[in-house]
Amino acid sequence: MSDVVTSKKLEPVLRHIDAGLDSAIERLQTFLKIPSISTNPEFKSEVRRCAQHITDELQSIGLDTKLHDTIGHPMVVATDDSAGPDAPRILYYGHYDVQPVEPINEWNSPPFDAELVDGPNGKRVVSRGAADDKGQLMTFVEAIRAWKEVHASLPVRIVILLEGEEESGSESLVPFLEEHKESLQADTCIVCDTSMWDKDTPAITSRLRGMVYIEATLHGPTHDLHSGGYGGALVNPANALTEILGQLHDSEGRVQIEGFYDDVQEVSSEQIAQWNALGDADAALLESSGAKATFGEKGYRTLERLWSRPTCDINGLRAGYIGEGAKTVIGATAMAKISCRLVANQQPEKIHDALVSFLREQTPVGCSWEFKNFGVAPAIAVPTESPWLSAASDAMTQIFPNPTVLIGTGGSIPVVGEFQKILGVDAVMIGFSLDDDLIHAPNEKFEISCFHRGILSQAVILEAYANLHV
Amino acid sequence: MSDVVTSKKLEPVLRHIDAGLDSAIERLQTFLKIPSISTNPEFKSEVRRCAQHITDELQSIGLDTKLHDTIGHPMVVATDDSAGPDAPRILYYGHYDVQPVEPINEWNSPPFDAELVDGPNGKRVVSRGAADDKGQLMTFVEAIRAWKEVHASLPVRIVILLEGEEESGSESLVPFLEEHKESLQADTCIVCDTSMWDKDTPAITSRLRGMVYIEATLHGPTHDLHSGGYGGALVNPANALTEILGQLHDSEGRVQIEGFYDDVQEVSSEQIAQWNALGDADAALLESSGAKATFGEKGYRTLERLWSRPTCDINGLRAGYIGEGAKTVIGATAMAKISCRLVANQQPEKIHDALVSFLREQTPVGCSWEFKNFGVAPAIAVPTESPWLSAASDAMTQIFPNPTVLIGTGGSIPVVGEFQKILGVDAVMIGFSLDDDLIHAPNEKFEISCFHRGILSQAVILEAYANLHV
Repeated sequence: MSDVVTSKKLEPVLRHIDAGLDSAIERLQTFLKIPSISTNPEFKSEVRRCAQHITDELQSIGLDTKLHDTIGHPMVVATDDSAGPDAPRILYYGHYDVQPVEPINEWNSPPFDAELVDGPNGKRVVSRGAADDKGQLMTFVEAIRAWKEVHASLPVRIVILLEGEEESGSESLVPFLEEHKESLQADTCIVCDTSMWDKDTPAITSRLRGMVYIEATLHGPTHDLHSGGYGGALVNPANALTEILGQLHDSEGRVQIEGFYDDVQEVSSEQIAQWNALGDADAALLESSGAKATFGEKGYRTLERLWSRPTCDINGLRAGYIGEGAKTVIGATAMAKISCRLVANQQPEKIHDALVSFLREQTPVGCSWEFKNFGVAPAIAVPTESPWLSAASDAMTQIFPNPTVLIGTGGSIPVVGEFQKILGVDAVMIGFSLDDDLIHAPNEKFEISCFHRGILSQAVILEAYANLHV
Repeated sequence: MSDVVTSKKLEPVLRHIDAGLDSAIERLQTFLKIPSISTNPEFKSEVRRCAQHITDELQSIGLDTKLHDTIGHPMVVATDDSAGPDAPRILYYGHYDVQPVEPINEWNSPPFDAELVDGPNGKRVVSRGAADDKGQLMTFVEAIRAWKEVHASLPVRIVILLEGEEESGSESLVPFLEEHKESLQADTCIVCDTSMWDKDTPAITSRLRGMVYIEATLHGPTHDLHSGGYGGALVNPANALTEILGQLHDSEGRVQIEGFYDDVQEVSSEQIAQWNALGDADAALLESSGAKATFGEKGYRTLERLWSRPTCDINGLRAGYIGEGAKTVIGATAMAKISCRLVANQQPEKIHDALVSFLREQTPVGCSWEFKNFGVAPAIAVPTESPWLSAASDAMTQIFPNPTVLIGTGGSIPVVGEFQKILGVDAVMIGFSLDDDLIHAPNEKFEISCFHRGILSQAVILEAYANLHV
């Protein structure tokens, strides 16, 4: 990193990060090996073990750290005031919980072995949670560690908030933020859970889609039936569910739920032009997904669809017999997990209710629905003219070959909206994962080069924020 | 059973059956405890253990019994020629394999504990395979045992064929019948795998539906994707599968597969009148299924739909994440198990091809299909004027409170067609299960009163057939 323009204080920190990379990787691997799957109750004790592990880690760096139990999974909060009372205070957010690992047989190595393997861009660590979000949150943890180890103090005051329910609805988040509103006050907030444009181009995310997620189970007969003895005589819930869900989209990919697009705002042509200038999004998407073609709502290009158009996707389907071979059964129930990605100005509760109504209105004769609501989150658009955003942008440009770009993301990070609403602070969303990191999928990975440059970037940002007077 | 008109030889056999019922129940329970699930390769050794068990059982009765290994699961063949070379020869058919047990958590007792519990009609045995088909095949085994124990010989010559692949496509059946065509020759055949009209009304089944069963997997991206990062940008196979399968039926319940009804023959109005005279089929169907309403192809009543109209049913659906909670995933594949029940004159291969074409023609952009064919079977209509059928009908009328009725069934018993084609013998389909026996479903059971009367009926039929000169 000898070409980075550094201050007298920053330079030894960056050298220390370079020299200590192997140890940082080992710490990341240890963290990854804890299967903190928050959505599955069977893993509850592992999620807590993971919270305790990162609490101990932050404590050992010298931060004042506390594990807070909640009605769900623990929150971890760590602070450092060594910069003195007049320094800006930065809130850092990440989540230590991870997605489930299914389908387990598609992993090339056990999902919690955190193996270091060679890839086209050098070493990578393969693990559930590698990029989402353990590897990412460790970029600021390691940057803070380096500053503390070199200077025994930080250039800014910090408060770190690590959540354990991000992948399972964040039920404790809002009550926790409200209860700890005072101690979480900050001048800005770095949310580290997004991706770069490509491996050499850092990005700040300014648009996030929101979400509605439900599970809908259609109940027919009280038990599974023989398809010979009953087929043709009554409603088969699996048949009926496909008929209903098959109506969710029209032939041009538009969602057919009543009022779905009512509150959607079209994006400015300037914004679209800027996105189009970023490069060939379709090629990258086909490459990272392995899909043979792009497809979606007619009239919008791929980045527009991903960053500015709402969707409705079936995330899970289950009915009848799904084991090997043939079973001539009419299943008593048919289940679908369905989510909508929302864009700015759509009201999540309204879309949730419209989706449920869409299903209810088509209830087949003699059948009934059972619904579960896994939470809703509004879409977010953060102010792009903020000095905190510009400073972070400049800092990353120092570390990476290409300048930082401004992007949207199709995903949802509900905490950003809650930070705005409850703490009154806008987030700067930076992250170091790549689109082919396979987050939420088998063989999730995180590039070591991304991890390394991510830590360096965070170290530069810490100093940049110390010099910012807003 | 003192009111049954019996011959001098038959009477002590019926007494012997009454006196030995408890032992017969214990033998049935032992048989049921072997988990002979033929469709799941993990149970292969259990299927073989079950074949060996029934082989030993038949040998111990004094039959000349042999277990034949096949490329799939074993065939068991047992013969007895004690009636002398001029006696009629009767082929008995049953199957010792059973359906899978899923969903396991809906069973009130372990599916292979074969518990004897009290029900509204007296004792019943609860077990996978209780009614389909272990309990049923044991009716003729126990009747034959009683004749042998009382008289040391049988009134007719017999050959018993027990299959272990009935629930998994019967891949070995045709080659086996062809290879053993000579030794399986018989004057008639009793296939014991159907049900009664109700607990007091025995039935002979003269119409069976045929079947086509496929598994269709739609492949999209090469791996599961995050629904935020990719939702709206490419085809979600789960969305697409529901859109395609949702087209299988029109709003009036008619199957939309091209040419599906071309070869279907309408049933005579006399036949329909006879079925309508049987009683309130809808009430019984709602009672046994727990469904709140009947539903199906417009213009046909329930028994017509079940016995004389073809269907298309989704027997299994799987896509994306189906565990607890929310996972924001776009699954790489979406799978459906789909079967069609066929009626007389429809050609199974033609329907199979039409179903596959229906799916192929709607292949979404960038996606591809993978198909598995789990076998096809034509529908069957057996001659109702046969003296073998009449004699069996009269025999059962002696044992049950109500006279025997002639019915159809919505299920498929492919072996009946193969017996016609390869051995040149028409089957008499009798059986003692009830519509609420929950075959193929959790808590399958067999009423002990049905088992008892079934054994007695089989004992009467043995003598009735000895006196039949055709």
